Amino acid sequence: MSSPEIERLIQMLSKLPGLGPRSARRAVLALIRRRETLLDPLAKALAEAAETVRVCSTCGNVDSRDPCTICSDASRDASLLCVVEDVADLWALERTHAYKGRYHVLGGTLSALDGVTPEDLKIPALIARAAEEGVREVVLATSLTVDGQTTAHYITDRLQAADVAVSELAHGVPVGGELDYLDDGTLQAALKQRRAV
Amino acid sequence: MSSPEIERLIQMLSKLPGLGPRSARRAVLALIRRRETLLDPLAKALAEAAETVRVCSTCGNVDSRDPCTICSDASRDASLLCVVEDVADLWALERTHAYKGRYHVLGGTLSALDGVTPEDLKIPALIARAAEEGVREVVLATSLTVDGQTTAHYITDRLQAADVAVSELAHGVPVGGELDYLDDGTLQAALKQRRAV
Repeated sequence: MSSPEIERLIQMLSKLPGLGPRSARRAVLALIRRRETLLDPLAKALAEAAETVRVCSTCGNVDSRDPCTICSDASRDASLLCVVEDVADLWALERTHAYKGRYHVLGGTLSALDGVTPEDLKIPALIARAAEEGVREVVLATSLTVDGQTTAHYITDRLQAADVAVSELAHGVPVGGELDYLDDGTLQAALKQRRAV
Repeated sequence: MSSPEIERLIQMLSKLPGLGPRSARRAVLALIRRRETLLDPLAKALAEAAETVRVCSTCGNVDSRDPCTICSDASRDASLLCVVEDVADLWALERTHAYKGRYHVLGGTLSALDGVTPEDLKIPALIARAAEEGVREVVLATSLTVDGQTTAHYITDRLQAADVAVSELAHGVPVGGELDYLDDGTLQAALKQRRAV
C-alpha cells in the first residue's frame, strides 16, 4: 500500500496510548504534510529525549538530570515527601503549583491479583528515605482505588512504625462538580469530613 | 516542571490530530517508560520518514519513491483513474484491495467560502493526465459533502468535455448499517438507486 517507512511509522505510533491504527494514520499524514513544522522537529525532539531523559535515582521522576530538578532544588522543603503512584501523578500535582516539597514515585500499586509486592515497588526505598533525610511528613497521594488505598494503608503502617507523620489528600466534592452527578462514596466522604465554615 | 526536552516533546506531540496536551503527556510517559521498544524505534522511524518520504509528482500519493509504487506498478490498470480528495482516502481505498487502477489526489475540495479554486487543487493536472495517458474511465471518489460533490460536478463537466467516461462510487446503505439509524439522504439515495436482485 504505502511505503515500508510510512507503514512502520504508523505501526509505531499506533502503540502509543490513546492512538489506534486509524488515528495513527491520520497523525502520520499530518506529519508528512507539515514536514518542516512538525515532522522534522518531532524527530529531533524524540532523538533528544531518547538521549537525555533518565529516571531520577532518588525519587523516580523523569528528567534530563539525575538527581532531578525537583530533588536538587534547594528551595523545596526537604522535610515534606509526597508519595505518588506514577510520574503522571507527580506532573499533575506540579501543575497545581500548590506543593513545595519533594516526591517519591512508587511505580505502581500493591496488587494481590497481579502479584505486586512492596519489593516490586519503591516502598523499601521510601521507608529508607523517610528515615534518612529527616522527613517530617509524608503526604500520601495514591489513587482512591482499592489497590491505591491498600498501598496507602501498607505505607502508613510502615511509616508510623518508624515514627514519621503521615497525611493523605482530602476527599470530597471536586471543584466544579455537581452533587447530582457524584457517586455515593464521594458524597459520603464529603459529608463525613465536612468542616466548619 | 519536567525537563525542557520532555516539555518540547509533549508540545510537539500535542499538535498531532487526535492528541491534546493530556494525551500527549500520557504518550510521552509511555515512550519514556518503554525506551527500547518504543522511544528509540519511533525516533528512528520518524527520522527515516523525514528523509525518504516524498509526494508522488504524478498522482500526489506519499511514498519513498517518485513516481510512487502504485504509479510505477505495471500490473495496475493505467486506463482507470480514481480521483480522491486526500491521501487518507487513497489509503482507505487501497485497504479494500478492490481497486486495481491508479489514483489522482486532488489535495482538497473546491470551496467558494475558503476561496479554493480549481487551480489550487490538482484539477488541471487531472484533466491533462486523463487526456495524455489514454485513460478510459475516471472514478470519482470525493466525499459526499457539499464541497466534495461540487468538486465532483466540476470535474465531471471538464472531463466529459474532453470525452472521458466518468463514474462515481455507489451511494446507499453502509454494510452493517441499521436502517433506523441512517439519515434520510442516504436512505433516499439507496431507494433511488435500488437494483434488481
